Amino acid sequence: MNIYDVSKKAEVSIATVSRVLNGNPNVSEKTRNRVLEVMDELGYTPNIFARGLGLNTMKTIGIMCSDSSDLYLANAIYFLERELRNNGYDSILCCTGTALETKQKYFDLLRSKRVDAIILAGSKFIEMKAKDNSYLLDAAKELPLMLVNGYLDGPNIYSTLCDDHAATYDAASRLIKSGREKILYLYTSYSYSGINKMQGYRDALTDHGISVSEDYIRQCPKDISKAQELCSSLREQGLIFDAVLASDDSLAIGAVKFAYAYHISIPEQLSIIGYNNSILASCSYPELTSIDSKVESLCITTVNTLMGVFSGINVPSRTTISADLIKRGTTNF
Amino acid sequence: MNIYDVSKKAEVSIATVSRVLNGNPNVSEKTRNRVLEVMDELGYTPNIFARGLGLNTMKTIGIMCSDSSDLYLANAIYFLERELRNNGYDSILCCTGTALETKQKYFDLLRSKRVDAIILAGSKFIEMKAKDNSYLLDAAKELPLMLVNGYLDGPNIYSTLCDDHAATYDAASRLIKSGREKILYLYTSYSYSGINKMQGYRDALTDHGISVSEDYIRQCPKDISKAQELCSSLREQGLIFDAVLASDDSLAIGAVKFAYAYHISIPEQLSIIGYNNSILASCSYPELTSIDSKVESLCITTVNTLMGVFSGINVPSRTTISADLIKRGTTNF
Repeated sequence: MNIYDVSKKAEVSIATVSRVLNGNPNVSEKTRNRVLEVMDELGYTPNIFARGLGLNTMKTIGIMCSDSSDLYLANAIYFLERELRNNGYDSILCCTGTALETKQKYFDLLRSKRVDAIILAGSKFIEMKAKDNSYLLDAAKELPLMLVNGYLDGPNIYSTLCDDHAATYDAASRLIKSGREKILYLYTSYSYSGINKMQGYRDALTDHGISVSEDYIRQCPKDISKAQELCSSLREQGLIFDAVLASDDSLAIGAVKFAYAYHISIPEQLSIIGYNNSILASCSYPELTSIDSKVESLCITTVNTLMGVFSGINVPSRTTISADLIKRGTTNF
Repeated sequence: MNIYDVSKKAEVSIATVSRVLNGNPNVSEKTRNRVLEVMDELGYTPNIFARGLGLNTMKTIGIMCSDSSDLYLANAIYFLERELRNNGYDSILCCTGTALETKQKYFDLLRSKRVDAIILAGSKFIEMKAKDNSYLLDAAKELPLMLVNGYLDGPNIYSTLCDDHAATYDAASRLIKSGREKILYLYTSYSYSGINKMQGYRDALTDHGISVSEDYIRQCPKDISKAQELCSSLREQGLIFDAVLASDDSLAIGAVKFAYAYHISIPEQLSIIGYNNSILASCSYPELTSIDSKVESLCITTVNTLMGVFSGINVPSRTTISADLIKRGTTNF
């Protein structure tokens, strides 16, 4: 029995139950009474709601990420920690790797520490098979679950997303408008974010009357050298491409190095666009045009939403933030 | 009154007091009795030692770093969290920035959370003025303080260091032996680590009969573009250099970009060596020769030492790990 059961039985939102528990005046007398009746009926004591009532709270949030040394996630953790601390909360960090079993193990561990909420940073936590996400839905009955650039539909689960589809759609469209016709798309994973990015590329080509060829959509580990090798081997196989759009800056930097090695001029003969606008974008010469996926905004919004949940105000379960294309020397538009 | 007072009055090490508290058999009957007598005399109850006794422990370690999005520190946090978790400890992360006041504030905050130890990651926590470090010495009377590549002398403070002096000494020596005479040294900060690195450069030049010119030792923010601009402006001013040795890969990558822009061939006309062997080292073409400062080893050793402190075994208060020079395309040796 938990806050979710109360909300269901009283036919009000979890936010309303939370408002009642917090003594927030912004609830009608009628609703308040119904919620209190249901709590009574279900045999709840305020203790069970200690967390929601701000009693016995550890003032600690669990942050899970697959790998805190990843450039994107390192930034996410930095911004999340900063925002949580500004709100008086500590962050317990948990790097889980990508195996489902380990993710579940660490997730349970964080829950056993009675953290006030869990933030899942990055899109590696939502599995393709619905049953593999049931542990998250179960947990959300007891504490808020915040997803940074991941999406899962369920009560007490809040997502802050970058509009990855629009970002790659826009980038591919600009490449096409600047005269590029053979755009190689490099990606690493089929995460929620990875799927959206790829679909943006596909849709842009289709909408501009270019047929999508699977030869031009290539998977590659998130590794500069591997991406360089892949570009080289595709060229050796005779694949012609005049642009590279990558799902991560590291892959785009691999393409830049390929161009150096083959004396292909950038951007005249090859345009290159990366993703995440990381420090890698300023490493190359010319510097890399890259999509700024707004990790700082995502993290600030995630923490603001969480604070809203804690204070029982209505917050959207899904917020989408637009990316920006940062134009530098690897493109000619 | 604390474990430090007991150790002082009983004239035994803190490790010995800890062994007694942990019921470790590796203490003589005589010593054990003296420690117990002193505890009695000072009016200690086991409660005060709850942490040392493994009772009421939060099994949580505070990790402080100036900026978790810094490439070196992001890796340090990743490895520290992994090693601590493997030992059953949670990590509370705290990003402090570099202002002393904020560092002290967050340090006190972590202490108030009753963490079992605090790890200071990176060499930004030890101040030049002794009085500015007194808060650390005070805190070490109550909990172990672990420094990752920083050094402070005091009871219950343990340092794991990279031999930065030997690393830059070796790198500069190799540059000289390969025929380079005008080596530009780029650095960012006067941290413990920063001072050692610079001294290694100075000593190598002196030992090889090259006089050290302050014109060739330049401070630069840890920023690729700033380093590129600095190299360009030095060249415009007529400073001749045939090698760049940098205290961080980002500065070295700036030098690589400067060489591209001026059509200076690497390594024929300009040799470049970075520091930290970060992901940036594989971004450039040719790839960057860089000093591997062994952040993983430093973190593993730090956590192993801490576990030794907890179990009351004798551990060294200072461990030094050698760096490795990773030779890639920006040098010709």
